[in-house]
Amino acid sequence: MSKEKVVLAYSGGLDTTAIIPWLKETYNYDVICCCVDCGQGEELDGLEERALYSGASKLYIEDITDDFCENYIMPCVQADAVYENKYLLGTSMARPGIAAKLVEIARKENAVAICHGATGKGNDQIRFELGIKALAPDLKIIAPWRDDKWQMDSRDAEIEYCKAHDIHLPFSVDNSYSRDRNLWHISHEGLELEDPACEPNYDHLLVLGVSPEKAPDEPEYLTMTFEAGVPKTINGEEMKVADIIRKLNELGGKHGIGIVDIVENRVVGMKSRGVYETPGGTILMEAHRQLEELVLDRDTMAVKKDMGNKLAQVVYEGKWFTPLREAIQAFVESTQKYVTGEVKFKLYKGNIIKAGTTSPYSLYSETLASFTTGDQYDHHDAEGFITLFGLPLKVRAMRMQELEKNHNK
Amino acid sequence: MSKEKVVLAYSGGLDTTAIIPWLKETYNYDVICCCVDCGQGEELDGLEERALYSGASKLYIEDITDDFCENYIMPCVQADAVYENKYLLGTSMARPGIAAKLVEIARKENAVAICHGATGKGNDQIRFELGIKALAPDLKIIAPWRDDKWQMDSRDAEIEYCKAHDIHLPFSVDNSYSRDRNLWHISHEGLELEDPACEPNYDHLLVLGVSPEKAPDEPEYLTMTFEAGVPKTINGEEMKVADIIRKLNELGGKHGIGIVDIVENRVVGMKSRGVYETPGGTILMEAHRQLEELVLDRDTMAVKKDMGNKLAQVVYEGKWFTPLREAIQAFVESTQKYVTGEVKFKLYKGNIIKAGTTSPYSLYSETLASFTTGDQYDHHDAEGFITLFGLPLKVRAMRMQELEKNHNK
Amino acid sequence: MSKEKVVLAYSGGLDTTAIIPWLKETYNYDVICCCVDCGQGEELDGLEERALYSGASKLYIEDITDDFCENYIMPCVQADAVYENKYLLGTSMARPGIAAKLVEIARKENAVAICHGATGKGNDQIRFELGIKALAPDLKIIAPWRDDKWQMDSRDAEIEYCKAHDIHLPFSVDNSYSRDRNLWHISHEGLELEDPACEPNYDHLLVLGVSPEKAPDEPEYLTMTFEAGVPKTINGEEMKVADIIRKLNELGGKHGIGIVDIVENRVVGMKSRGVYETPGGTILMEAHRQLEELVLDRDTMAVKKDMGNKLAQVVYEGKWFTPLREAIQAFVESTQKYVTGEVKFKLYKGNIIKAGTTSPYSLYSETLASFTTGDQYDHHDAEGFITLFGLPLKVRAMRMQELEKNHNK
Amino acid sequence: MSKEKVVLAYSGGLDTTAIIPWLKETYNYDVICCCVDCGQGEELDGLEERALYSGASKLYIEDITDDFCENYIMPCVQADAVYENKYLLGTSMARPGIAAKLVEIARKENAVAICHGATGKGNDQIRFELGIKALAPDLKIIAPWRDDKWQMDSRDAEIEYCKAHDIHLPFSVDNSYSRDRNLWHISHEGLELEDPACEPNYDHLLVLGVSPEKAPDEPEYLTMTFEAGVPKTINGEEMKVADIIRKLNELGGKHGIGIVDIVENRVVGMKSRGVYETPGGTILMEAHRQLEELVLDRDTMAVKKDMGNKLAQVVYEGKWFTPLREAIQAFVESTQKYVTGEVKFKLYKGNIIKAGTTSPYSLYSETLASFTTGDQYDHHDAEGFITLFGLPLKVRAMRMQELEKNHNK
Repeated sequence: MSKEKVVLAYSGGLDTTAIIPWLKETYNYDVICCCVDCGQGEELDGLEERALYSGASKLYIEDITDDFCENYIMPCVQADAVYENKYLLGTSMARPGIAAKLVEIARKENAVAICHGATGKGNDQIRFELGIKALAPDLKIIAPWRDDKWQMDSRDAEIEYCKAHDIHLPFSVDNSYSRDRNLWHISHEGLELEDPACEPNYDHLLVLGVSPEKAPDEPEYLTMTFEAGVPKTINGEEMKVADIIRKLNELGGKHGIGIVDIVENRVVGMKSRGVYETPGGTILMEAHRQLEELVLDRDTMAVKKDMGNKLAQVVYEGKWFTPLREAIQAFVESTQKYVTGEVKFKLYKGNIIKAGTTSPYSLYSETLASFTTGDQYDHHDAEGFITLFGLPLKVRAMRMQELEKNHNK
Repeated sequence: MSKEKVVLAYSGGLDTTAIIPWLKETYNYDVICCCVDCGQGEELDGLEERALYSGASKLYIEDITDDFCENYIMPCVQADAVYENKYLLGTSMARPGIAAKLVEIARKENAVAICHGATGKGNDQIRFELGIKALAPDLKIIAPWRDDKWQMDSRDAEIEYCKAHDIHLPFSVDNSYSRDRNLWHISHEGLELEDPACEPNYDHLLVLGVSPEKAPDEPEYLTMTFEAGVPKTINGEEMKVADIIRKLNELGGKHGIGIVDIVENRVVGMKSRGVYETPGGTILMEAHRQLEELVLDRDTMAVKKDMGNKLAQVVYEGKWFTPLREAIQAFVESTQKYVTGEVKFKLYKGNIIKAGTTSPYSLYSETLASFTTGDQYDHHDAEGFITLFGLPLKVRAMRMQELEKNHNK
Repeated sequence: MSKEKVVLAYSGGLDTTAIIPWLKETYNYDVICCCVDCGQGEELDGLEERALYSGASKLYIEDITDDFCENYIMPCVQADAVYENKYLLGTSMARPGIAAKLVEIARKENAVAICHGATGKGNDQIRFELGIKALAPDLKIIAPWRDDKWQMDSRDAEIEYCKAHDIHLPFSVDNSYSRDRNLWHISHEGLELEDPACEPNYDHLLVLGVSPEKAPDEPEYLTMTFEAGVPKTINGEEMKVADIIRKLNELGGKHGIGIVDIVENRVVGMKSRGVYETPGGTILMEAHRQLEELVLDRDTMAVKKDMGNKLAQVVYEGKWFTPLREAIQAFVESTQKYVTGEVKFKLYKGNIIKAGTTSPYSLYSETLASFTTGDQYDHHDAEGFITLFGLPLKVRAMRMQELEKNHNK
Repeated sequence: MSKEKVVLAYSGGLDTTAIIPWLKETYNYDVICCCVDCGQGEELDGLEERALYSGASKLYIEDITDDFCENYIMPCVQADAVYENKYLLGTSMARPGIAAKLVEIARKENAVAICHGATGKGNDQIRFELGIKALAPDLKIIAPWRDDKWQMDSRDAEIEYCKAHDIHLPFSVDNSYSRDRNLWHISHEGLELEDPACEPNYDHLLVLGVSPEKAPDEPEYLTMTFEAGVPKTINGEEMKVADIIRKLNELGGKHGIGIVDIVENRVVGMKSRGVYETPGGTILMEAHRQLEELVLDRDTMAVKKDMGNKLAQVVYEGKWFTPLREAIQAFVESTQKYVTGEVKFKLYKGNIIKAGTTSPYSLYSETLASFTTGDQYDHHDAEGFITLFGLPLKVRAMRMQELEKNHNK
């Protein structure tokens, strides 16, 4: 009888490589590796050899970048979903996409379990596992870092373990930040960032761009168009969403845009401090917001803002595959029908400076807004409006006056 | 019998000067002028002569800058109240303070009416009048621009009217933006801004500072301390709130900070486009937010965010003197007890770059956050947490699987 | 050249009958009457003669009961939209449906205006007019009760006016409550209700049913089924929504259900007091809520509750034809997919007593809920859950203890 | 050296009695029992003998009923905090009060741990433990039912264990519902309730009152007064809050009021089904709500409703001793200043029928509400109000018309 199979989320790094022999030894599994590409821009050549050499029976390399952009990123952009004022959810949006792909491979391979290398202190374990539970509640989930049978408590121990299992591979020395990267962003944790009193060492830290101080002295203009809430062109050139984000990353990185230094609240109850680079995403979200300013009415904007905050929490908590996320997305989609038009910016040393917005569906009316009386506006209407708008205040104040008067008698 | 008195909100400009003879002629009032100083930084010398010469029987000059800073600005800063993502409510917060002062003078003078020069298309008429209604519901409110008896429809007509009433004064030519200024900000509307497709002419427009491009090439560090949500020192020097804002205006203006270009939704139903400069306020709010990151827990932050958005709407709509504003403020105050600590920034060409935050009440714990297992954290706890946190998803997925299975039988 | 046409919302009562000659005389319009039937259960025979006799050139009788039930009532039921804790929005939901029909007739007739008989103090004028503005912004709206040219200030004056225009019709004496009725509800205002200190005279007032005290001593069981949030059967009999409401009205009215006595806040700024009878609607909404208890998860329920409250405000304010209402409805619809199952009640003297609920999509699991440990639940998980769930509180408390200790040194 | 002490939440029942010898044997603790009386109405005579006989070294009987009513119940009543539409939080509000008392005794006794008998599947473990963590993060918490060293898996095993430790006591046979009772309510779980399809057996189940069907045929009137949101008198007699609740329990129980049958979502992730009796609380909350209808303005009511829902979640989740609960309570308190007045009801077979409300601070104005034009209301104001209130809709509709026209060209 053949062995049971496990699908391992594999990156090629030391951690997930050491997991391969450990899964075989500890659980007697046949290990199917799966590397899901969300645009992290890493070298994937040689990954298959590495996986097989380390004892895996197969490696899948799955590129979900377009799926990630269209079905995970765009709904969040349209919702203006930002966690705790600053975090653009780069890692949070990618995890469910990866989980979905792992489940798909597990089904295809008839695997009984999925294994991931996320640690026991972070949010990612939650996001992976809630994704898997929602899509395949029957699959077992293995998280070695939380597993009592996992005995390696350092990189050295992992290297020792690999060697003891005849895996002799070069692994990069880990004296750097703890990072997560995909097409949307890169996150940095650790080193000096662990003390919120410390200024980040941006020269050392930045990967996707430069700091505002290192950015060019010359500003650069940028024009984007949207159709129904989806970006369509940059500087007149039509591109798919993934390519738009790539292009914006290049521009934003160059001009020092989208660097965020945050102390955030993890789902598992503690605060953590990190730096995020989201150069293209920051521009994309600002462009979308700017267009909505012209096109959405006041009531819709106000409720949509609450929905966006709520979506950010839901996504941050790993609750992507839930009825609530679907319902919020349905709300947001309904508001995007007319988010069509052109936005123009000037990028300059960390700044995204608005330089004009137009839309066929603009609700801005120059005749109405101008302080010259126009056709559609009769100043006397304001009189009636204020009388009724202020009526509750006035009734209340009169009642209080009356009570006071009686009291003073 | 002596004439009835009206208190006129007086600035010394053409509009409010022309109102003096108009009030006397039209309503036979004794006109008491009142100029309320919220730190707008205008020359007030000679204002009394001007008012009396124009027919007023008295001029009050009332400096409410400290009141404005402590009782109107600070509650909004603590709430992080921002209207439609961008507007820091500079004009909105000042209007109720001015209204309260006008009512105070009206009571002192036994006046029967208050007159203001706000137009019939804007928000300010609402803010003034709701303030007056709430504090003195018995007082009559006169808004000449909405009054059928007001016949002047241009600056020339107003000048003519003044001359016809023997008021010969120099008035500045009005070929500029429509502006409102106080210690917190300056707003600009009109001219090229009336077309949202137009890039603002910042060289022409800016008053409180320069654009990022014109800002110094050298960054500048800044350290602030807060106690219980109130700013106390800048670079080690203790100051009252108004002086802190003054100092921050100077620094922010110099470094091109706090310039906002927005299409916003007015209360009276139309969109308008404006540019706001809030150099010091932008720094103050960011500093406060940054300290809260360390000190507030996740649940409080999330609900406080909703409360801040709500307060921004309430204040924007002129509903300052209401039970709802008081209740929201009570909520916010309750969260500020431990917002004490030090924040450090680097100001550079429009950027406020965080450079370290500390607080005795910081909830950040390095042992907890670090990915090395610490005393207070047992990785196994995460297992149980995820199991229960994900239980609803799993139960749901299992139910659906079961139904599908039955269906396929 | 032929006269311009106006479409008049016509009921056959004194008010709208007097409007016919007034529109002709005052505006020289050709008057097209339109009576929109939302299930108000009034006699419509003879209405055409009455309208034509009074000077109208045509009468449309339009039955929109099914449209009202399916497209206006059901979205609100699914959202659990209740205004200020109590009001089930009977009138609010009907007005936009009527407005849409009036606009349809106006287009068909090439009319230039629409006229309604709602007073200037109520919410209905807003609901009619916002509906018309949203669907046909070019049409003129005539509201005689707010029109300076309308001089009749009493029923007697209206009768006089009719006679003077050769309209001799019997009109009921108006010594009763001010009422609005449709298939969903009837509202009562006026008489003793104008003083909130007064107990309503239910014997005199009730139309759709009896008070709990007059209801039968025998309870009655009732079973309903829903599919995807839509009611399908009553006691096993399949019916369309309108018939289900009719049947529930009969049952609820008989058993004294759905009588509400409320002081509510009108949009135009004052409080008003009314009694609503919504016998069937009260049962329908409770049945739907009960099924959702079984089927919706906790997160979805919590956000949906906020959305329902928001929808209630939007609908109450007459903002039906808006992007916000559409977006909220999209949210709600997304949650209804699995609201399928059977609910059972006992009706007894004003009470709706639950008697069992089932659903194929029920998320209730007896093994999980029971205090006997089951397969899917390991008590140890709770340990981990509580540790992390309570971590922020504990970290905070430890920090405070530490500070106190240092302080006491 | 003396033994370390543990404080045990003690009820005298089998579970907590068996815990005494177990704590001594397993952890070698000196066991201090503490029975906290929240008005559960149980016989406490003989409890001390029972505890000491079972091996405890001391028993505290602590009556916190007044504290419970004033500091836990009233803030929730004022907030109108109801969990998932129905649950009046009876158990949720009591747990933090009990936790606070346990901590107080632990400090007094210099204990190192607190032990409670709540199960591992319910919410109470969370509420106890979060309370203890927040007030005394240094104390160890022992939850035997989740403890690996606890081996008793049935009542029989517990009785065996007691006997083996020479504890020979009569224990009631447990063939009933699982219940929790205090002054505010009693909850019932288990037996037929475990199947949501089953109608509750009310004759068997109810403790605090009768079902509507068993209630008297004669209605009974009831008058209450409030001052600043706090109930002061019943039928003219002044009483403290606890006595008011006692009196209301008697009346409500008699008339079949406040019985709720719910499927609710526990914090630990599963749905559970229970029946709650809250006879007095249901009347008290309705009375308070009714007074607020007269006294609170529309804006405050709307936001307060959201705050109440939020508070219900926070309290349900055991997060009483948190900054968020404090902040919400500050919001609510701020709204209660004028919630003063008299409410009158008729109680009849499960119904609370309003019979008139008055308040010196009532914002209801008969002149304003009545459809006869009054002093304070000019019908023309409505014209202006609607024009501006509907302006965004109209502008939008015109823009769409225009686009369509261009498109059709």
